[in-house]
Amino acid sequence: MNIFLVIAHPEPQSFNGALFREAEQLLREAGHTVRTSDLYAMQFNPISGRHNFSTVKDPLYFKPQAEEIFATEAGGFAPDIERELKKLEWCELMIWQFPLWWFGLPAVLKGWVDRVFVMGRTYGYGRMYDQGVFRGKRALLSVTTGGPRRAYEEDGLHGDIQAILRPVQRGILEFVGFSLLAPHIVYGPAHLTHEERKTALFSYSRRLESIVSESPCPVGSY
Amino acid sequence: MNIFLVIAHPEPQSFNGALFREAEQLLREAGHTVRTSDLYAMQFNPISGRHNFSTVKDPLYFKPQAEEIFATEAGGFAPDIERELKKLEWCELMIWQFPLWWFGLPAVLKGWVDRVFVMGRTYGYGRMYDQGVFRGKRALLSVTTGGPRRAYEEDGLHGDIQAILRPVQRGILEFVGFSLLAPHIVYGPAHLTHEERKTALFSYSRRLESIVSESPCPVGSY
Repeated sequence: MNIFLVIAHPEPQSFNGALFREAEQLLREAGHTVRTSDLYAMQFNPISGRHNFSTVKDPLYFKPQAEEIFATEAGGFAPDIERELKKLEWCELMIWQFPLWWFGLPAVLKGWVDRVFVMGRTYGYGRMYDQGVFRGKRALLSVTTGGPRRAYEEDGLHGDIQAILRPVQRGILEFVGFSLLAPHIVYGPAHLTHEERKTALFSYSRRLESIVSESPCPVGSY
Repeated sequence: MNIFLVIAHPEPQSFNGALFREAEQLLREAGHTVRTSDLYAMQFNPISGRHNFSTVKDPLYFKPQAEEIFATEAGGFAPDIERELKKLEWCELMIWQFPLWWFGLPAVLKGWVDRVFVMGRTYGYGRMYDQGVFRGKRALLSVTTGGPRRAYEEDGLHGDIQAILRPVQRGILEFVGFSLLAPHIVYGPAHLTHEERKTALFSYSRRLESIVSESPCPVGSY
């Protein structure tokens, strides 16, 4: 299977880094073809702007979606976007590894979406959700949180984790057609002992071993 | 009143730009003190990393929150963060003007939160939500969408706009203690006529004229 791993964390030695490397190694050893984007290591620029394009549709008024449609027709995406688009189009399974920052994606990952998920190539002309460009592909969020599990329950301090992840799962991934596997969440790794983190890492490995046969969640089930 | 306006849009001539400038002018003319952050114009760097700090707590392992607490004690924030922190601490009302991109904040605004809302100075030691550092201050999201209003209703294509905004309103603004005014949403300005956009701009002005006497929404009412 073609698997695309994306990670957004500033510290390679972090638990996010460990989960990412574990996934990369395990999935390669299982015979899959794995491509990666380590957004911090790549120094990926998350700011969407005219530098997204080598082409110009309207030099007087910058409307990202209009430029994206034009660049789709003209092959006018900047190299850093084209490379990521190719991985997105190539993969059958995509895994995002990130810490939940402020109930959302770290900015570098949000900006990767803002810039790479372009109109024309990844959606548009009515192609979205169940008619999405990437239907048939699957996606998995592998997330760490600051707080403990009970804080992310429906009556917990922050409320249901599914509601927190909904804009990402529904508004980004399902929007472009991905089917979602249940998110893999490690709660509060900073508060775990070394042994507990090893156990959490092992649980992730066990899940990944059979990830190709996992069934996606029902659409909109959050 | 001390009012802080933040805008995240790459095109100054956009409808977001018009709403932002209208707010700035109207609120100044009404006698308020207004400070602004135009994140694109400032070329604000949204990537959180060691460059956030002039101090170093742990040179071997970068943990943002630990560095933030240390920098709070040592006065060790980089100038671009310190300037934004001062505006955040100074304001009584904060307005964010942004287009909804992928059910969320444009990356430059998300990264502004990731970097500026630092542990120690804006939360921590149990200070969050109703015990938040900024309780007593108010915040308003002024948002434009791509789709029409009906797409953001509970049974609409994208689902309830309140669920989409919840991670921002609850997970960022209420988390640090802000009370929320009802979000000001202009649906699909790109699909409106010039006259309709003028009407929408005028509605926003009318609202801003009495914004200081508006009551916040009940906590968690979304």
